[in-house]
Amino acid sequence: MKINMSKSGLELSRIVQGMMRLNEWGFSKKELENFILKAIDFGVTTFDHADIYGNHTCEKIFGEVLKSNSSLRNKIQLITKCGIMVKNEKYQRRVKHYNTSKIHIIESVENSLKNLNTDHIDLLLIHRPDPFMNPEEISEAFDELYNSGKVLYFGVSNFTIQQFKTLQSWVNVPLITNQIEISPYNIEHFENDNIYFLMEKRINPMAWSPLAGGNLFKINSEKASKIFYALKEIGKDFSIDSLDTIAYAWLLSHPAGIIPISGSGKIERLENAVKSLELKLSPEQWYIIYEAALGHRVP
Amino acid sequence: MKINMSKSGLELSRIVQGMMRLNEWGFSKKELENFILKAIDFGVTTFDHADIYGNHTCEKIFGEVLKSNSSLRNKIQLITKCGIMVKNEKYQRRVKHYNTSKIHIIESVENSLKNLNTDHIDLLLIHRPDPFMNPEEISEAFDELYNSGKVLYFGVSNFTIQQFKTLQSWVNVPLITNQIEISPYNIEHFENDNIYFLMEKRINPMAWSPLAGGNLFKINSEKASKIFYALKEIGKDFSIDSLDTIAYAWLLSHPAGIIPISGSGKIERLENAVKSLELKLSPEQWYIIYEAALGHRVP
Amino acid sequence: MKINMSKSGLELSRIVQGMMRLNEWGFSKKELENFILKAIDFGVTTFDHADIYGNHTCEKIFGEVLKSNSSLRNKIQLITKCGIMVKNEKYQRRVKHYNTSKIHIIESVENSLKNLNTDHIDLLLIHRPDPFMNPEEISEAFDELYNSGKVLYFGVSNFTIQQFKTLQSWVNVPLITNQIEISPYNIEHFENDNIYFLMEKRINPMAWSPLAGGNLFKINSEKASKIFYALKEIGKDFSIDSLDTIAYAWLLSHPAGIIPISGSGKIERLENAVKSLELKLSPEQWYIIYEAALGHRVP
Repeated sequence: MKINMSKSGLELSRIVQGMMRLNEWGFSKKELENFILKAIDFGVTTFDHADIYGNHTCEKIFGEVLKSNSSLRNKIQLITKCGIMVKNEKYQRRVKHYNTSKIHIIESVENSLKNLNTDHIDLLLIHRPDPFMNPEEISEAFDELYNSGKVLYFGVSNFTIQQFKTLQSWVNVPLITNQIEISPYNIEHFENDNIYFLMEKRINPMAWSPLAGGNLFKINSEKASKIFYALKEIGKDFSIDSLDTIAYAWLLSHPAGIIPISGSGKIERLENAVKSLELKLSPEQWYIIYEAALGHRVP
Repeated sequence: MKINMSKSGLELSRIVQGMMRLNEWGFSKKELENFILKAIDFGVTTFDHADIYGNHTCEKIFGEVLKSNSSLRNKIQLITKCGIMVKNEKYQRRVKHYNTSKIHIIESVENSLKNLNTDHIDLLLIHRPDPFMNPEEISEAFDELYNSGKVLYFGVSNFTIQQFKTLQSWVNVPLITNQIEISPYNIEHFENDNIYFLMEKRINPMAWSPLAGGNLFKINSEKASKIFYALKEIGKDFSIDSLDTIAYAWLLSHPAGIIPISGSGKIERLENAVKSLELKLSPEQWYIIYEAALGHRVP
Repeated sequence: MKINMSKSGLELSRIVQGMMRLNEWGFSKKELENFILKAIDFGVTTFDHADIYGNHTCEKIFGEVLKSNSSLRNKIQLITKCGIMVKNEKYQRRVKHYNTSKIHIIESVENSLKNLNTDHIDLLLIHRPDPFMNPEEISEAFDELYNSGKVLYFGVSNFTIQQFKTLQSWVNVPLITNQIEISPYNIEHFENDNIYFLMEKRINPMAWSPLAGGNLFKINSEKASKIFYALKEIGKDFSIDSLDTIAYAWLLSHPAGIIPISGSGKIERLENAVKSLELKLSPEQWYIIYEAALGHRVP
């Protein structure tokens, strides 16, 4: 149930639990602890955060559990992100923007460490490609964070192929993932070749929104309808009713080694995700879903 | 009249005869043999097949001639392809899809060898980029086919730049061509940089549909009309009436070393193609056709 | 005020004076000499030409000053370009096209040397990517021009990433720049990743039309209006009224080391450009302009 992130040495669980909406789940500290423990029981030991999730609150909520249960930290891997400067009532900026300056990256990680009550982040991602990025500054920030032991591994999110190559050419540490949106509802990273690039580089993609924020199970557009019935058809092959299991199997069967991030706070949903690890789609089954996503047959 | 496929050692004829519609030509075995012999006389010694052409019948028709005339095989080079799983009355599949698994590639080549009555394929192409491809399996299949002498050279068809790089990074054999659609009617591989990539890698592109399936000679759209009159204008420069000769000259004059595939079963059409080898377009002549294809002047 | 073009050794001024419209400025030889001397006073020592500017007249006008003031040549760097074959009353061609054959490149440079009254060009650019280019011929031309001392450095203009890679793979000299259109009005080379590619390769982009031909200061479209008010807002931060200064600062603050080309014949405009060297935009200020260009907030 572990996946080795290419040659880096970092081991993440095959499915990752996302914490973006933790602040909305209404968990007590005890309930969150139980959720985490059950996830670990399922083999899901990696938790995906970002500095800004829940308007900068989610890391802190999660960190309270780590504080009160000191045995937890060694059983899990923590991912967090930095670089987005939100604008709202709490953060009064002139515009939402990105900041990947050395000083901001380091400050953001220091905050994340404090919020999460931990002394190290397992994997730090640049949240969005920053057209104003100074790769030399990012390199210096990464070196400092790596040498101090505060961050063990580094990666990016939502980068194009070229943006990945550019940043990699400047930083001394290997970039071990690109966290991108992939689902039967969103196949843009097949169409823009990003997935093939990561396969060339032996880098595991992480997939955010693997269920397209629930759009997979709505029949409110022709596209959604096609995908829904395709998932249903494959579900029937395996006698499985939970279409999310099929959507996860579609991602997990792919040779790129895609690591999906389950974003739900319902433990049953995570269970449905984990069940998909037992399924292996044939090329024909995989294409039934892919062509529904594409909207037409392959040429 | 031969072209050396980069550093690989494989020699193909400068123009290739395509066999996609062989089943529609209504040739007797003798007529097909005569067609092949005349092509060889013209210097066209390479024949382009695919497992699926004619709903899996064309290889077999061609193979009958090789069986009855045993001196032919050594005078020609055979290209075939694999990876497309058609769906029709004969092949009852749930959807048309691709399959580039190790087991399918090897099985498909074994069938092609049997159909063609030969013990080796000169050049095997993956017919379409397979988003579900497992490059490790393709690599194993290629190694096995190469080591057994069943396939001498390998390439791809319709791949993007990145898909080519990805597959090349996994397979041990060099990919010696990308067979793509190129014609004055279809310049997408100039626009998506594929042709420049192949020039960087010193790889000869093969061009399918070099006459755009006949669209070049119709005046049923503004685009077709522009191209028709551009070809006519250049034809006048050389006192040549057959516009297909000009279209081939446009491809053959290009420094990328494009190898066009003539798809017609009429030997006069192949003759028109071969005649183009004597023409060399100037930059201005080449641009008259290119700008007709583009629909506007270059900036 | 000098910028070192990567590892090449060529030093250009941080801002370059473009000569495309020199023939329209109505300068006497004395006025042009004064303009050049004032530019040099400002630290602007690099002058950007092309064979075709002013329908092949601008180089000659400039060269008259170099002829009469023999001390000037050693104080400046000359850029020129070749490869575009214009079509008009003076040049009666069948179509406008490109020509990057060896014979044309060398002939064009010989003409530029004669027109400019100099024995060497500091930097020669291929003006436009030529889909009919024969990179081997370009390589031979560059070698010959380099070995004879007639051209010191080489580069390209308006090339895609792949076109740049392809040409670089064939020529022995390093390509030290890609001169592309960049301005708050035109961010296409952020969107097509060209700027990130140049950052990967440690190559300084040159920016033509940094003020979008004056479009930056018109309020005749929603886009223009958004950009106008963004520039105004940042101008206020620095108590600067000249919006062109802000536009230049936006380019010069970027870590890619963009070298803008000022195209105006009014010395005050060049002064406004030079003033921008004192400004350093923060990420937030930079994004206020970028998002105006984008038309929406970043995700």
